[in-house]
Amino acid sequence: MESSAILPLSQLPYVYPATPNTNKAYPFWPCKRRTSQPTRLHCSKMFVPGFGEASPEAKAAKNLHNFFTYVAVKIVAAQLESYNPEAYEELMEFLSRHSLNDGDKFCASMFRESSRHKNLALRIMEVRSAYCKNDFEWDNLKRLALKMVTDSNTRLMKDYVLETSSAETEK
Amino acid sequence: MESSAILPLSQLPYVYPATPNTNKAYPFWPCKRRTSQPTRLHCSKMFVPGFGEASPEAKAAKNLHNFFTYVAVKIVAAQLESYNPEAYEELMEFLSRHSLNDGDKFCASMFRESSRHKNLALRIMEVRSAYCKNDFEWDNLKRLALKMVTDSNTRLMKDYVLETSSAETEK
Repeated sequence: MESSAILPLSQLPYVYPATPNTNKAYPFWPCKRRTSQPTRLHCSKMFVPGFGEASPEAKAAKNLHNFFTYVAVKIVAAQLESYNPEAYEELMEFLSRHSLNDGDKFCASMFRESSRHKNLALRIMEVRSAYCKNDFEWDNLKRLALKMVTDSNTRLMKDYVLETSSAETEK
Repeated sequence: MESSAILPLSQLPYVYPATPNTNKAYPFWPCKRRTSQPTRLHCSKMFVPGFGEASPEAKAAKNLHNFFTYVAVKIVAAQLESYNPEAYEELMEFLSRHSLNDGDKFCASMFRESSRHKNLALRIMEVRSAYCKNDFEWDNLKRLALKMVTDSNTRLMKDYVLETSSAETEK
């Protein structure tokens, strides 16, 4: 049993703003149409507006990058907890003072805290690199995400149909 | 030029809490060690604590799932803006009242708003399915994320060395 796992998964926020900015006339969306859309002419993909010079893949990769730092911190903490309680306490203390939202900023701050923290930061960086290259199951990620969208779409429609048909029956 | 893209990418929050919960004695991390760790015995992967019954891949897939809904809403809005301004306005108005944090919750609410909104929701669901199956570049995501971790690690170490060597020179 994984009774020790108290990670507040449900508290994790998501990758975009809670509500679009409504101060202006929908600045969340492009205000003007593109005058030229070269990608539309040369490929059959749907036009995704609003990512500027970046791409949805780059945005998703950036979020995964921060997620890998978060996972690496957890891995290192779990390792230290058993054989180096002192370093574990230092890591926990540092975590209580620094946000993990931006993985690189977190590592940069840790680097400059003390020489012991510098070694911890180097280890976290090494682990996040090894984790995303060797341990993270990329094929599984794709499989789970594709399954999730199919299952969710089916469930949403099923729930709606059940809800409306039971409402009809009650009339 | 993509001058119309005003998506506030920099404002997008990340996939984990800003700071670990410090009310208790590090509930962010497991308080007890596992008594049995079957996965450790049978594979060479690093032990990642704290994901309970789920996995890091499932957590990342859940976030991608919400990201796909967000992208689908953008695609549909961009399409509607040009040929159906009325539906576009309705979508924008709905967006101003409902959070996109939870994609499925957003679609479920839209389903129940009105029959016109129901059609919008069905379209968004269809687009997110098509987007993640056909358009999203999974290989590119992996490539970008692996490159990002290597580049970031190099830059972090380089910055630190430059900083400390220039501090040495000033002495």
